[in-house]
Amino acid sequence: MAATLEALNTASPQEAEGLLEGIYEHSPWIAQGALRQRPFRSLAHLKHAMARVVAEAAREAQLALLRAHPELAGKAMVDKALTAESTGEQRSAGLTDCSPEEFAQLQRLNAGYNAKFGFPFILAVRGPRGTGLTRRQIIDTFERRLDNPVDVELAEGLRNVHRIAELRLNDRFGAEPALGNQVWDWQEALAAFSDPGFREKGQLTVTYLTEAHRAAAARIAQDMRDCGFDEVGIDAVGNVVGRYRARTEDARLLLTGSHYDTVRNGGRYDGRLGIFTPMACVRELARTQRRLPFGIEVVAFSEEEGQRYKATFLGSGALNGQFDPAWLEQKDAGGVTMREAMHEAGLPATLEAIAALRRDPARYLGFVEVHIEQGPVLNEIDLPLGIVTSINGGVRYQCEVTGMASHAGTTPMDRRRDAAVAVAELALFIEQRAARDGDSVGTIGMLEVPGGSINVIPGRCRFSLDLRAPNDAQRDALVAEVLAELDAICARRGVHATVEPTMRAAAAPSDRAWQQRWERAVQALGVPLHRMPSGAGHDAMKLHEVMPQAMLFVRGQNGGISHNPLESTTADDMQLAVQAFLGLLTGLAEESP
Amino acid sequence: MAATLEALNTASPQEAEGLLEGIYEHSPWIAQGALRQRPFRSLAHLKHAMARVVAEAAREAQLALLRAHPELAGKAMVDKALTAESTGEQRSAGLTDCSPEEFAQLQRLNAGYNAKFGFPFILAVRGPRGTGLTRRQIIDTFERRLDNPVDVELAEGLRNVHRIAELRLNDRFGAEPALGNQVWDWQEALAAFSDPGFREKGQLTVTYLTEAHRAAAARIAQDMRDCGFDEVGIDAVGNVVGRYRARTEDARLLLTGSHYDTVRNGGRYDGRLGIFTPMACVRELARTQRRLPFGIEVVAFSEEEGQRYKATFLGSGALNGQFDPAWLEQKDAGGVTMREAMHEAGLPATLEAIAALRRDPARYLGFVEVHIEQGPVLNEIDLPLGIVTSINGGVRYQCEVTGMASHAGTTPMDRRRDAAVAVAELALFIEQRAARDGDSVGTIGMLEVPGGSINVIPGRCRFSLDLRAPNDAQRDALVAEVLAELDAICARRGVHATVEPTMRAAAAPSDRAWQQRWERAVQALGVPLHRMPSGAGHDAMKLHEVMPQAMLFVRGQNGGISHNPLESTTADDMQLAVQAFLGLLTGLAEESP
Repeated sequence: MAATLEALNTASPQEAEGLLEGIYEHSPWIAQGALRQRPFRSLAHLKHAMARVVAEAAREAQLALLRAHPELAGKAMVDKALTAESTGEQRSAGLTDCSPEEFAQLQRLNAGYNAKFGFPFILAVRGPRGTGLTRRQIIDTFERRLDNPVDVELAEGLRNVHRIAELRLNDRFGAEPALGNQVWDWQEALAAFSDPGFREKGQLTVTYLTEAHRAAAARIAQDMRDCGFDEVGIDAVGNVVGRYRARTEDARLLLTGSHYDTVRNGGRYDGRLGIFTPMACVRELARTQRRLPFGIEVVAFSEEEGQRYKATFLGSGALNGQFDPAWLEQKDAGGVTMREAMHEAGLPATLEAIAALRRDPARYLGFVEVHIEQGPVLNEIDLPLGIVTSINGGVRYQCEVTGMASHAGTTPMDRRRDAAVAVAELALFIEQRAARDGDSVGTIGMLEVPGGSINVIPGRCRFSLDLRAPNDAQRDALVAEVLAELDAICARRGVHATVEPTMRAAAAPSDRAWQQRWERAVQALGVPLHRMPSGAGHDAMKLHEVMPQAMLFVRGQNGGISHNPLESTTADDMQLAVQAFLGLLTGLAEESP
Repeated sequence: MAATLEALNTASPQEAEGLLEGIYEHSPWIAQGALRQRPFRSLAHLKHAMARVVAEAAREAQLALLRAHPELAGKAMVDKALTAESTGEQRSAGLTDCSPEEFAQLQRLNAGYNAKFGFPFILAVRGPRGTGLTRRQIIDTFERRLDNPVDVELAEGLRNVHRIAELRLNDRFGAEPALGNQVWDWQEALAAFSDPGFREKGQLTVTYLTEAHRAAAARIAQDMRDCGFDEVGIDAVGNVVGRYRARTEDARLLLTGSHYDTVRNGGRYDGRLGIFTPMACVRELARTQRRLPFGIEVVAFSEEEGQRYKATFLGSGALNGQFDPAWLEQKDAGGVTMREAMHEAGLPATLEAIAALRRDPARYLGFVEVHIEQGPVLNEIDLPLGIVTSINGGVRYQCEVTGMASHAGTTPMDRRRDAAVAVAELALFIEQRAARDGDSVGTIGMLEVPGGSINVIPGRCRFSLDLRAPNDAQRDALVAEVLAELDAICARRGVHATVEPTMRAAAAPSDRAWQQRWERAVQALGVPLHRMPSGAGHDAMKLHEVMPQAMLFVRGQNGGISHNPLESTTADDMQLAVQAFLGLLTGLAEESP
């Protein structure tokens, strides 16, 4: 019989501690600490409270928590000395069935890991659907994490401990993340489509209008129909559009969605999570035959990444009536024009048909987008959801500093005009200056001393600059100070810099009212609020030009890595995203007259 | 009738000022300041004293000095409003015969230069032998210097003012640098030999055992015979060896010399100055039929740069009995083995013949080497000669820092593991740490983020490290602190570094007694002493292994640039080098019993 949150909230301290026993391995102090914060408004609230107790504990206590865990396929497993929870987890991951070679390899990895870090390797081996990781995946992850620095691995170990606790709590409280599992299944099914050359290697690559792309669109359209959308179609640029009607004919619509194309060898959540989350909501509405005072239009945008053609935001831009006619003649790497690709996909490939996709903003309430964070923040602070305050504005430059190449042996330190050290000084300034804002970022991603020699002082140094901030004024101040510092460094060092702008994008601050709607929905789930800018660009930037918008971020696993097959989130977090979206719909319905 | 130094030293202040009138254009304060330091021991002493008055003046006074000069081929020349000195100089450079196009180009350059720097472009247009620079060379130099930062160009303008003053003083005092001119002529003649592919472009490249190299050897041998050397020959590795006998049969020898091979597109003074300086001395001895209590052996080393084969210091190493037998089978870029090249050059190409080149150190007093500085120091402090205290020891590493590549937009500044910023921090540390020693140097010459993207935080950064110091203990302390700092940076930033040593050379401190012989010889010329380490390696490093050694540096023009066609020195400075060498010989003769 499952425990209940109500029972936990009203039990005596001893009873309550009993309800949480074994959630964190051999570490009752965590339950004790968290229980002081009763009552819990949700299981998410309880999970976060327990994670914060660990985060706020002394490093020694954190290490003790890690050390309280058994090794994977270690001596405790062999000796059958594991806790009941660990036994089930290690068995379900197939670790009890290791081959002698696998077992020997795991023992070597355990020994190496312990020697380096001083605590055992911890991995949440049970997957979100109970499918779990394969032994091969476990060993690969083990090897990769052995290269981490100690502090990174301490954090990684603790995050896995929290994930294990989450799975145990779900079992204990009978909390199956059914909506999250639905989204999980859609993601898995859609990830089966991948471009040739990648599919064979198990890599996910879906670029604009390829066969895989068209198959993905067809699959999304079918899933939409199965959900109970009233109208489903694929438009002239390949967007999949589903509409769920309002209570009344003339009601306005909420626009939402994200993209289904991917970068090369990308992750399966980037973009797609923002399609499936509202689909799961519409499925719930349709299942209960509920109609809202507004319609819902979910768009799976066909092209956001600009990976096959240089046509970033093509799908969402088309809804603004933006489409560069020159794009039709643009060729991909194989020489196929976009016009030919559209014809091949059965699209009309005429400017008239594309222009007709323009939406009348007056017909829409606004635009919301759910997206995986693609960064480490939520992961680090143990929160499943984040409120986006703004999509950062950015500028990019290609730069070169010219100094004087001279003999590394004969030129004294105080008589050098070293182009690379000048850039080094700028790099450290950018790091400090951007950090001062808290939410600005600045990056030198490309860096090179062309034709450098080991014994020649760099006479030239080429580098790129990428500077972003949540609003244009903050971005402009950052840019002005960085460029002024570059000037000052050049003057001081007797070197010279050229700075060529290559990109400038305005920030897209979230609409205040829409951001508050997300905040209310997240708070209603008992999930503490965390507001944050989006460092990456999203389709919402395009819709921002014509209607109010606000985004919701979902935590990514593995340090938030994205544009990478390691990109991942959990069914629990997706469950909360769907619940938040349902909350937003309900709140919006209550606002309507 | 020429002025004399004695007259200058004994004249009244007003008369003395008259003797120096017009040496510095419209700026009598320089002569006034310098004359307070009478008596002058030499013209070099006077030149240095005047240059120091300028160096110690306020920046405004320095700018006024520059502004007191006419533009090259400017309005003053056209209006015939130049000083007598300037008129002669601009005429001898052919500026009065400019074509209309050249004249128009010079006016444009003058206008651009004045607009950028606020003072006129100044160039000592009279060359060391009165040959002067061509109009084309003047215009090329003008264009190149327009790119300089203001401070560099202020220094460059002042150095040219001093060179103009030097030429005017030579005229005024009837001081023709006859020995320096002799060395100049030898250098020019030898520079006529260059390898195919470079000769056609007017570039100097003489690599081991090419036709140009053999022709150069033959030319040096002939010049040695003409000087009056008693024995001249080309040895089994291509060294040209000249011996000038002592007063007695069994006397020991002074060994001296430097190399005649060059880097690709190199300068004409690197190495060769150390051959021709002692040759000019022997020529003086032979001319006056003077014999010393010791013999003089001048060796023009055949291979120091290791440009055709990886066999650096082959020529000087052979005198130590060092020759790697594997070198004979080494192929050049064209597939020719060293053995074949030696046969082609008429050399025996046997290990026996090469081993026979080994000198018995007991037969030698020591080794001295004159070399162009290949650095900016003497040029900046207005001194023609420098005493080398040590040839720096060095170590080299190839390194790589590994961090975590992640999204430049979504990764907050405080959650990054940026490999390139870690290297930037190291670069600034090296700069400060090496500068703290005063005479250590540290350089990151190669620097690269492999496969960097503008919007990706660098996950890797490759770089080279070159660290040098005048003695091994100082070098080792420098290296230890730099590597410790790299470790500390890595720990702080959660990144990881690999460090692969590729070279380690011991320092070669000058022998105290031999360094003092150079010091006495330089002081006797009335040239202030400046002691300095050699940052570059030289043949003296090899001889250091078997006998005491000490080197003398000669100032390079153009900021001391080397391994470059702009490498240059003056007949005046070479004159002083020959005189210093003669002084060393005389001093050594007086020491002998």
